[in-house]
Amino acid sequence: MPATVDTSALRVDGDRLVRRLRELGQVGALEGGGCARLALTDADRQGRDLVTMWMRDAGLDVVIDAIGNVIGTRAGLEDVPPVMCGSHVDTVATGGIYDGNLGVLGGLEVIATLNDAGAVTRRPIAVAFFTDEEGSRFAPDMLGSLVYAGGLGVEQAHDIVGIDGARLGDELARIGYLGPTPCPGRVPHAYVELHIEQGPVLDRAGEVIGAVTGIQGISWQELTVSGQANHAGTTPMAYRHDAGFVAASVATFVRKMVTEIGPPQVGTVGRFDLHPDLVNVVAARAAFTVDLRNTDEATLQVAERLLAEYVAEVAAAEGVEVTHRRLARFEPVDFDPRMISLVEETAAHFGYPTRRLPAGAGHDAQMLARVCPAGLVFVPSVGGVSHNPGEFTRPEHVAAGADVLLQVIMRLAEEDEIPGSSKPQQ
Amino acid sequence: MPATVDTSALRVDGDRLVRRLRELGQVGALEGGGCARLALTDADRQGRDLVTMWMRDAGLDVVIDAIGNVIGTRAGLEDVPPVMCGSHVDTVATGGIYDGNLGVLGGLEVIATLNDAGAVTRRPIAVAFFTDEEGSRFAPDMLGSLVYAGGLGVEQAHDIVGIDGARLGDELARIGYLGPTPCPGRVPHAYVELHIEQGPVLDRAGEVIGAVTGIQGISWQELTVSGQANHAGTTPMAYRHDAGFVAASVATFVRKMVTEIGPPQVGTVGRFDLHPDLVNVVAARAAFTVDLRNTDEATLQVAERLLAEYVAEVAAAEGVEVTHRRLARFEPVDFDPRMISLVEETAAHFGYPTRRLPAGAGHDAQMLARVCPAGLVFVPSVGGVSHNPGEFTRPEHVAAGADVLLQVIMRLAEEDEIPGSSKPQQ
Repeated sequence: MPATVDTSALRVDGDRLVRRLRELGQVGALEGGGCARLALTDADRQGRDLVTMWMRDAGLDVVIDAIGNVIGTRAGLEDVPPVMCGSHVDTVATGGIYDGNLGVLGGLEVIATLNDAGAVTRRPIAVAFFTDEEGSRFAPDMLGSLVYAGGLGVEQAHDIVGIDGARLGDELARIGYLGPTPCPGRVPHAYVELHIEQGPVLDRAGEVIGAVTGIQGISWQELTVSGQANHAGTTPMAYRHDAGFVAASVATFVRKMVTEIGPPQVGTVGRFDLHPDLVNVVAARAAFTVDLRNTDEATLQVAERLLAEYVAEVAAAEGVEVTHRRLARFEPVDFDPRMISLVEETAAHFGYPTRRLPAGAGHDAQMLARVCPAGLVFVPSVGGVSHNPGEFTRPEHVAAGADVLLQVIMRLAEEDEIPGSSKPQQ
Repeated sequence: MPATVDTSALRVDGDRLVRRLRELGQVGALEGGGCARLALTDADRQGRDLVTMWMRDAGLDVVIDAIGNVIGTRAGLEDVPPVMCGSHVDTVATGGIYDGNLGVLGGLEVIATLNDAGAVTRRPIAVAFFTDEEGSRFAPDMLGSLVYAGGLGVEQAHDIVGIDGARLGDELARIGYLGPTPCPGRVPHAYVELHIEQGPVLDRAGEVIGAVTGIQGISWQELTVSGQANHAGTTPMAYRHDAGFVAASVATFVRKMVTEIGPPQVGTVGRFDLHPDLVNVVAARAAFTVDLRNTDEATLQVAERLLAEYVAEVAAAEGVEVTHRRLARFEPVDFDPRMISLVEETAAHFGYPTRRLPAGAGHDAQMLARVCPAGLVFVPSVGGVSHNPGEFTRPEHVAAGADVLLQVIMRLAEEDEIPGSSKPQQ
C-alpha cells in the first residue's frame, strides 16, 4: 500500500459535512425548510457554483462535460481509471437538503479527510455531480449519468424540452454549464454512491447502513386526453367528452391496479393539468403523468399493459382521444455482488446494524452500473420522508454513511481490478 | 300608443347584428376562432370600450355603476322605470362570439331599429352589460347582476380575489370601469334577455325560439386536499397521504353520483391543480372545483350531501384533510309566467317553432328576476356547443331572436304595469 498513512483508521469530520449540507441547502431555500433547485434553473446554477468552488478549494482538477456533469478528480499515484463517487445537486420543487447533495458532499468530505491526513492513493478519486437526476424539469430522470454512461446521445439530450418549454441545451449554456469534455465520459474503475434511503425501511428497523442490492424498474409516461370543451350547465352528461373525467378515472384506476398487484409495485399520478381549467367548462384537454415502479420487470410490464387497456376502454366509452408519450423507462438493475458485499463488510467492520435492500428510487449509480461495477450505500431517512422539505437524516447517520463511503473508496482505490466483477450491464 | 310609427311592423337588421357580433368577437380573438375576454382583463376592457362606444353612437345615455355594469338608456316619453335588456360581454377563456354578446348587441340592434324608424316609446329602454357573468376569473358567476339586484354588497364584491390573485375592485379601477353610479341599481319595469341556448335541445328539435321557464340551481365549491409530499418510488402505497389520488377519486365519484341521480342533474370537475405537480412526487396538495346543477332544489341538496359524505370517507381512508369553500350557490329560479307567455306569444306571432324549456346555465336574467319580472329568450346553438370557440348560431336565428326581443320590449315599453305579474323573488 503506497499511502503514507494508515487509511483504515481515517474517519470523516461529520460536523463539517453536516455544515456543508446546510450551507448548500440555503441555496434555493424554501420558506419553512427544504429547498428548490430544479435542474438548470438559476438556483441550480448557484448550487453548482458553490459545490464547484468547494471542489477547487479541495485541490481537485475540475472538468465540465457536454451535458453539464461536473467531475473533480484528486490525482492518484498512477494514471489509471479513477474510483468515482458522487450523485446530484438538483432537487425537486419541494425538495429536502439531503437527497443527492449527501452523495456529492460526502465525496468531498472523503477528499477533505484524505487531504487533511496527507494520504495518497494508488488510483485517482473522482467526485461527480450529474445533471438533472430528478427529472422534474426535464425527463427522463438520471439524465446526466445516462448520457455519461452512453445511454443517450448528447445532441438528443440537448433537444429535450422541459415542463416550462425551455430547451435543455439552451439552459445548460445559459447557466454556464455547457462544458467541453465529451460524453460518454471516461469509464471509472468503479463507482460508489452514498444516498439517503428516501423510504422507511432502515429507520423503522433501527438500522444505520443499507447495502443496496438493486434498483426498481421505472416506467414514466405522460398521457394527454383530447375531449371537447363545453358548458358545464347545459351539456347533458350523456353528450360529454370530458377529458378531465377520463384523466381522473385513470388516476383512480392506477391506485386500484397497483393495490391489486401488491408490493413492491407502486404507482403515482403526480402531474395533472386541465385545459381550460375553469369551474364551469368541461375540460377539453387533460395531461397527466403515471409513474410505475417494480423490482420485477415482468410485473412492471403487466402493470403497463393493464393501464393501457383501461385507458383504451375509458377513452372509448367517453369518446375522447388519448395520446401517450414515454418520459422514462428503465428496467430494474442488479448491482455487482462484489460491491454489495464490500459495502456490507465495511459497515459490519464499523459495527453498524446493516441490511441488504433494494432501492425504491432511481439513482445515478444505476447508470454507472452500465459501464463499471457500481455500489450504493443507504443511510436512514427519518419517517421515510423524502422529496419533501421535512426530509431529515440524523447527523450521526450522515457521518456513518460518509465513513463507509471513505473506506469503500479506499479499498477500491488500491485495487488492480475487482476480482469476479460482473460485466458491464446494458 | 304614442309612437309615431307602427312598431309592430318593425324588424331588426340581422346582417348588421351579425357583423357587430363578429367585430366584437375580434377583441381577444383566439387563433382558430372564438375569443377570450375573462372579466376585467385588458381584453374585457377593449370589448367594453367598443360596446360603450356603440352605445354612445346610438345616442344612449351611458352610466357605469360601482361594480362596473354599463347601462345605456334611450329616453321614453315618460320618466318612469325603463324596460331593460342586456347580458354580458365577458367570456370564458375558450369562449365563443355569441354567448352574452348576443343579448347586449341584440339590445343595441333593437335601439338602432327604433332609431332608424324614428320610433318613440312610452317607457325608456335600457341596454345593460353586467360585469363578470361567467365567474371564470372571479367567483361567483353573474356577479355584476347579483350586485345590481342587491344580492351582494359592493364592498364585499370588490374584495373578491380571482384565480390569478387579483382583487376585483382593483381590476375594475385599473381598466377604468369603477363607476360612480351606486348599487343596487334602479329597479326596471321589466327585464328581458336574449341568449343562445348553449345546449342541444332547440337545435336537435329544429326549433327557433325557446321561452325559458326557469334556471337550474347552481352549486359551485372548491375543495382543497392537504396530504403529504413524498417520493413516488420509495413510499409504499400503504403509507401514502396522496392529495392527488383523493382529488381524482372525488372527481370520478362526481360522475358516478350524477349518473345515478339521472337527468337533469349534471356535475363537472373543471379545475384540477396539484402541488408540486411533478411526475415523481406524491402530491402534497390538490385543489379542484365541483359544479353541480339541478332544476330541483331538493335533489341538488341531495347531490351536495352525497358528495360531502364521499369526500369525508375517502379523506379519512387516505389520511388527508379536505377543506371546502363555497364559490357560488343559487337556488333554481322560476321566471314570471306572464313573461314566459309574452315571449312564447311573440314568437308564435312570427310563426317560429317555439318551445318552453328550462335553462341549463346561469344568466343575468335570474338576478334581475329578484327585483322585477324577467324573461329569457333562447335561440339555438348548433350542436349544443358552447363555452368553446366552435360555438355557432345561424344568422337567421340571430335575427329571429332579435326580432322577438324587439317586439317583447315594445310591448313592455307601452305597459302601465304587467297585470298579474309575480312579486319580486328572493
